[in-house]
Amino acid sequence: MSQVAASFREDCPRYWNDFVEGHTIETGEAELTAKAVHDFAEQYDPQPQHLDAEAAHGTVLGGLVASGWQTLAVTMRLVVDAQFLGGLPIIAAEFGRTRFHKPARIGDRIKAEAVVLTTRQMNSRSDRGFLDVEVKTFTTAGELLVTQLWTLVLPCRPASS
Amino acid sequence: MSQVAASFREDCPRYWNDFVEGHTIETGEAELTAKAVHDFAEQYDPQPQHLDAEAAHGTVLGGLVASGWQTLAVTMRLVVDAQFLGGLPIIAAEFGRTRFHKPARIGDRIKAEAVVLTTRQMNSRSDRGFLDVEVKTFTTAGELLVTQLWTLVLPCRPASS
Repeated sequence: MSQVAASFREDCPRYWNDFVEGHTIETGEAELTAKAVHDFAEQYDPQPQHLDAEAAHGTVLGGLVASGWQTLAVTMRLVVDAQFLGGLPIIAAEFGRTRFHKPARIGDRIKAEAVVLTTRQMNSRSDRGFLDVEVKTFTTAGELLVTQLWTLVLPCRPASS
Repeated sequence: MSQVAASFREDCPRYWNDFVEGHTIETGEAELTAKAVHDFAEQYDPQPQHLDAEAAHGTVLGGLVASGWQTLAVTMRLVVDAQFLGGLPIIAAEFGRTRFHKPARIGDRIKAEAVVLTTRQMNSRSDRGFLDVEVKTFTTAGELLVTQLWTLVLPCRPASS
């Protein structure tokens, strides 16, 4: 956990204006158990590479892996739990490029880090601002799994306050 | 369902070579019930805008909405169920821009459509190819919720076959 992140949480940021480029957080960890991988895939991504070990060997992945959507959803949970924006909700306007470097495999423990790359005012509204955030998901062994770019939308501090 | 999509399923495509630009599918529908929105948020995105109706009014969303990750995961399920690639698994190398036009609200029924925009050979390997796919998620009332760009990776037909 960076000093910057810790100081944001103590101050309980309320506005876009409270964030600076370079604001960084490292999350805790989550395990992709066989049951978790199976249950997520059954509900959202019922394909052989997630559910059928034998058939998974015939895909370009070469074996059973977690759904990429699960890796992304668990990453979100980790970033939320780490209170990346302190007291403010994490609301995305859009995502830039999401790159899947390696699939998560059963038993992997994963963690994430999030860094504010840029802070931008919204052109169309003076009461909202954007944060462009790079989010990386790793195994706890240090393998990079996914890189994302999030554009988050936050309220700006009212001119009167 | 387009004629093209139907003919792919009958032929059971096995390779990147079997797909053409313009290949399109329309999915079935799924409902975002209050329980489904709550359960997903509790597990993957435990924030007030998804879980706490009163606190949600204080966010830029103005009220309770489904997690964007849930809209995306359900979209994946719809595209998988619609057998977009016929007999082939849907495996993403990366996603381009994902735009959240409107949040899904409780009780919304959603559907999706997927269109192959381009087919590209992989430079680094002759046995794999890419499909660039535009995926749009709508309410059944026709409101556009999310636009995505997926780059999928598929095996190419062996030169000998």
